[in-house]
Amino acid sequence: MNGAESLVHTLLANGVDTCFTNPGTSEMHFVAALDHIAGMRSVLVLQEGVATGAADGYYRMACKPASTLLHLGPGLANGLSNLHNAKKAGSGVVNIIGEHASTHIELDAPLTSDIEGIARPVSHWVHSSKSAADVGKDAVSAIQAAMVAPGQIASLILPSDTAWNGGGVAQEAAEMPAPAPFDAAQLETAATALGGEETLLLLGGRALTENNLKIAGQIAAKIGCKLLSEWSNARLERGAGRVFVNRVPYPIDIALKVLEPFKRIVLVGARAPIGFFAYPDKPAILTRDGAQITTLAHSSADLTAALEALRDATGAEDTAPAHVVEASMPDRPTGPINLDTLAAVIARAIPEQAIVVDESVTTGRAFSPATKGAPAHTWLNNCGGSIGYAMPAAIGAAIACPDRKVMCMSGDGSAMYTVQSLWTMARENLDITVLIFANRSYQILRGELTNVGVGNPGPRAIDMLSLDRPALDWVQMARSMGVEAQRVETCEALEAALEDGLTGGGPNLIEITL
Amino acid sequence: MNGAESLVHTLLANGVDTCFTNPGTSEMHFVAALDHIAGMRSVLVLQEGVATGAADGYYRMACKPASTLLHLGPGLANGLSNLHNAKKAGSGVVNIIGEHASTHIELDAPLTSDIEGIARPVSHWVHSSKSAADVGKDAVSAIQAAMVAPGQIASLILPSDTAWNGGGVAQEAAEMPAPAPFDAAQLETAATALGGEETLLLLGGRALTENNLKIAGQIAAKIGCKLLSEWSNARLERGAGRVFVNRVPYPIDIALKVLEPFKRIVLVGARAPIGFFAYPDKPAILTRDGAQITTLAHSSADLTAALEALRDATGAEDTAPAHVVEASMPDRPTGPINLDTLAAVIARAIPEQAIVVDESVTTGRAFSPATKGAPAHTWLNNCGGSIGYAMPAAIGAAIACPDRKVMCMSGDGSAMYTVQSLWTMARENLDITVLIFANRSYQILRGELTNVGVGNPGPRAIDMLSLDRPALDWVQMARSMGVEAQRVETCEALEAALEDGLTGGGPNLIEITL
Repeated sequence: MNGAESLVHTLLANGVDTCFTNPGTSEMHFVAALDHIAGMRSVLVLQEGVATGAADGYYRMACKPASTLLHLGPGLANGLSNLHNAKKAGSGVVNIIGEHASTHIELDAPLTSDIEGIARPVSHWVHSSKSAADVGKDAVSAIQAAMVAPGQIASLILPSDTAWNGGGVAQEAAEMPAPAPFDAAQLETAATALGGEETLLLLGGRALTENNLKIAGQIAAKIGCKLLSEWSNARLERGAGRVFVNRVPYPIDIALKVLEPFKRIVLVGARAPIGFFAYPDKPAILTRDGAQITTLAHSSADLTAALEALRDATGAEDTAPAHVVEASMPDRPTGPINLDTLAAVIARAIPEQAIVVDESVTTGRAFSPATKGAPAHTWLNNCGGSIGYAMPAAIGAAIACPDRKVMCMSGDGSAMYTVQSLWTMARENLDITVLIFANRSYQILRGELTNVGVGNPGPRAIDMLSLDRPALDWVQMARSMGVEAQRVETCEALEAALEDGLTGGGPNLIEITL
Repeated sequence: MNGAESLVHTLLANGVDTCFTNPGTSEMHFVAALDHIAGMRSVLVLQEGVATGAADGYYRMACKPASTLLHLGPGLANGLSNLHNAKKAGSGVVNIIGEHASTHIELDAPLTSDIEGIARPVSHWVHSSKSAADVGKDAVSAIQAAMVAPGQIASLILPSDTAWNGGGVAQEAAEMPAPAPFDAAQLETAATALGGEETLLLLGGRALTENNLKIAGQIAAKIGCKLLSEWSNARLERGAGRVFVNRVPYPIDIALKVLEPFKRIVLVGARAPIGFFAYPDKPAILTRDGAQITTLAHSSADLTAALEALRDATGAEDTAPAHVVEASMPDRPTGPINLDTLAAVIARAIPEQAIVVDESVTTGRAFSPATKGAPAHTWLNNCGGSIGYAMPAAIGAAIACPDRKVMCMSGDGSAMYTVQSLWTMARENLDITVLIFANRSYQILRGELTNVGVGNPGPRAIDMLSLDRPALDWVQMARSMGVEAQRVETCEALEAALEDGLTGGGPNLIEITL
């Protein structure tokens, strides 16, 4: 057995059965191993940002890592920004990165680079295999690293001679790490801190599962604290029958206003709220001066245990949860599409158990209230702020959950970053409806110009934020990669297009002109 | 004057008047500065790989660096693989990378990352500005670093408070570094080593200018040594009236055969030939055992001085150069397109002073002999092996040389990596004719499977190298981004399309079905 074969066997034995890849020469033995070892779903992408973003979305929905197979330093580099997003989302990813044979590295060939150096800023765990005999054990270590709660980035570098040499040893299923305990020493402080309108239970990460939200709802019902989630959530369960939480807003002035009342805050899986960016003459810490902030559980902890303990400490075991949402639907809008009618049409279309991958940026600010009472669904945010996450993450989510509908909502500027995703959606015939919000602008930056103190931007500045010269034609774009598409300009047309798309079973794209 | 304004003034004073960019919030003060400081050509791209690849192509043709303006660690990360290519090509680039305000970094906001760590593997010079007062001086240091011969990657990180704070000091034009001296101690050895069929003068980097090739041709004529260039050349001047050199071949078996005869080799701007990849049971050093290799000049040296000294030491001052090419043209091919007829049609179409950006990979192996006698032109190769360099580099070349025609030749797999380039070509109305060789496969990897010892690949392996499910429609792809396009399947149609494209004045794309 060569090293590559031991790797594939070990991945499969440990439940890593999906690989997002664009391989090259140094990965050919891994590719060859896939030929005669069954069980690995290999998904080809046309740029590695699609692979790493797909692995992010996959982990969020499958709760286990996919692997990526990347070609040397440059292949990793192309996937780096979506690994940044995955890292910030707490997603586990097992990167397999090919490297020149050990004897070849010192020759500084054209593709030689410092792979460990490129991997380290986005990885929790980086290791280069030393021999074919080590590869299986190294793969187990990588998977264990990826499974550290909430999920970590593991980068295993495989010199090609460790792949092609014999002596590989396939490893069996290994024990995976349990989440850390929550901070029980803070339990009494946390339970005492909460109570009334001036107190907040702030939730993040796996505190946002359906069950954990229900516990939080019990606590809120019992002692009257407020509930919020972080601005960006890797995975939020929401919709009819679930406990609803608002997100801390993105715009700094609104966030400051929302958080101002809270004198005592308890964190479960969340971090204390800070500004997404720094702005001249505005605070970076969004909570009021002197707010008492208690961390009951970091995102790496067992958040169910933390919330159950908090519920019990507040005597809410038998309390019915607050904020449980009743099914509701906005009135049917007609006529031109604006941000409010758009939100209503989308809210009316969300199917039961849909996965909504949201990179709508400025267009999406009305979505949360409108979709509150939609059928139960899962909502994924971009947690790292590097645009181009949505279409790749939708691929990973669709592969993790083939029986669920995926709605992928993206601004046009964001979607262009990883536009190659469309081809993989077509190739894999994934059940994804992509909504492109074509405002033909980096609209968010127009507001940010003002926020950083730049008044009255002139034509050269505005031109740097504009995507209308030429306008992108998303219908042709999608069709060029084998995805059916249509353009809509009215609520009625959008409604019909969503009906088509969400019942079609394969990928489709709707360009919404704003 | 704020820090951002001092930066723009300093860049302009030192000849850096082109900026390839996709800015974000942390770069808004730089964008604002462009509004009221004239002289910077700012080119918006839809993904940063286009920006860094464009800066590479720009430097090769302008012989001075462009700047890039990148949004934090993720923006840099997206541009990393084309910075790898630029580094290997010896291109100078001044990266300006926004960063959170100094006080914000420690808060670990979503977009926070280790920017210096991401920059270092692809940069010769990395620095974070400490205050607005430093920005101007730091910019001078960055430009000087970028101008170290043959050209280097400089990455200047600009915390947003150093951009928005007052106290910026614009710097005047500074002295730029001269190339290093060549190794005069090796001159006699080099001159003695060369002579006859078993000796080779191997040229790289700036040894491939028209003038330097002429000197090499004189030496070859006088003492009968052979001439070759490296496989990948940042910029090779060729065509009628110029001294012709073959490249060391890429396929390892052919490269070994071509280099086998040479007992003594002198390097001027080139490195000793090594394999692009390691292969089981094949040597990595491509020259014969015991070959005497003399390095007269590294790529960082004054190669004109080195070649002139070698010419004088071999007494070739008054010798007419060998290998001067006469104008010639292949016969006009007709009928179906295959690799040979394709090369002939292209050779017949190359305009005088064209810039040919070549990422044709497997399709292009017949191009060199066919185009040997075409009108004088410039040929750019991918020097780092990370695919997706050609369309971005064509953008940079077209902006550096607005009076020259650019032919950009790319395999379909490579072109998809930075397909967003097409939009910037349209936006800037660049005179680029893009040829896409649509073999619907990572064709080169089929050969590499064999080279690494994988015989008879099965369907799963082949599937990982195939781009035909679905086929990419390059005509729709180009039009979706505002570039006119057509598909051709015969030599006659290709000839007509090239005639159209090369006289049209704006960007256009030709999909060549293979």
